[in-house]
Amino acid sequence: MSRAGPVRILGLDPGLRHTGWGLIEAEGTRIRHRGHGVLNIDASQGLSDRLAALHAGLSEVVGAWTPDEAAVEETFVNRNPVSTLKLGQARGIVLLVPAQAGLPVAEYPPNLVKKTVVGTGHAAKEQVLAMVKVLLPGCGVVAGDAADALAVAICHAQHRRHASLAASLR
Amino acid sequence: MSRAGPVRILGLDPGLRHTGWGLIEAEGTRIRHRGHGVLNIDASQGLSDRLAALHAGLSEVVGAWTPDEAAVEETFVNRNPVSTLKLGQARGIVLLVPAQAGLPVAEYPPNLVKKTVVGTGHAAKEQVLAMVKVLLPGCGVVAGDAADALAVAICHAQHRRHASLAASLR
Repeated sequence: MSRAGPVRILGLDPGLRHTGWGLIEAEGTRIRHRGHGVLNIDASQGLSDRLAALHAGLSEVVGAWTPDEAAVEETFVNRNPVSTLKLGQARGIVLLVPAQAGLPVAEYPPNLVKKTVVGTGHAAKEQVLAMVKVLLPGCGVVAGDAADALAVAICHAQHRRHASLAASLR
Repeated sequence: MSRAGPVRILGLDPGLRHTGWGLIEAEGTRIRHRGHGVLNIDASQGLSDRLAALHAGLSEVVGAWTPDEAAVEETFVNRNPVSTLKLGQARGIVLLVPAQAGLPVAEYPPNLVKKTVVGTGHAAKEQVLAMVKVLLPGCGVVAGDAADALAVAICHAQHRRHASLAASLR
């Protein structure tokens, strides 16, 4: 992508109950907070209706905030297999929605997100939240899931710049 | 549901590369084959684009075959966690599409599907295929993924009838 102006990046942190999202603008080395939130899905419904609610909510976010690119954290799989399956189902929807809107979707491993935002791949959740607030002044109160979403958006802002710099030097 | 006429049941066997589908009509104790197929998703694309292709293909099937209800096999999770995550992502899409069309989506454990179709919960894949052909004469050549999809549709046809019979006796 080589258009002028800032790139709008949607970061996403998938979950069956809570999916965090965060939108930033990136232009050169500068990033700016635009919005964030958490989609809370009613757990009393059947699984397929919960996934449909997640799809509808996330489609609304994409429609309202018109991102150019999306970024999602890769998922740890060395955990409870039942949780992995549940998370996978929600993650399928979270990867689907931006693709349906024609956005490229990047994935980053959790330790790269932490390393980019905090400086170490083994940072605690609180450190990530603290650095998100430093890097995005004016973002206000941020819930944990939204902070993780903003963190992966920040990670993408940095790595997409490196990728396009490398491409321009070829 | 208490409308007259046969109920159209869409059985689904989710996978990231191959998703089987099978449509049967059920009326009382009678079932009839209407159609089946396999959605093959190009593995060379990125994950989110593959999920979008699966969503588009399955939406086309639902639109063309107008099922009333859908049934999906529950997933074994005591396997490779990486496979579980991948399958979960595809499964999220497969559960989503019928819910978006307003269909109720039932889930059945694999051994109940086998027990219903073959008579034993530990039947081999070949036995399931053979019984699907016996129960649905005229279904023609059926690939493995489509046979599994038809099997879960048959399972739902039987169990939804028991459920509504039980409800009418209350």
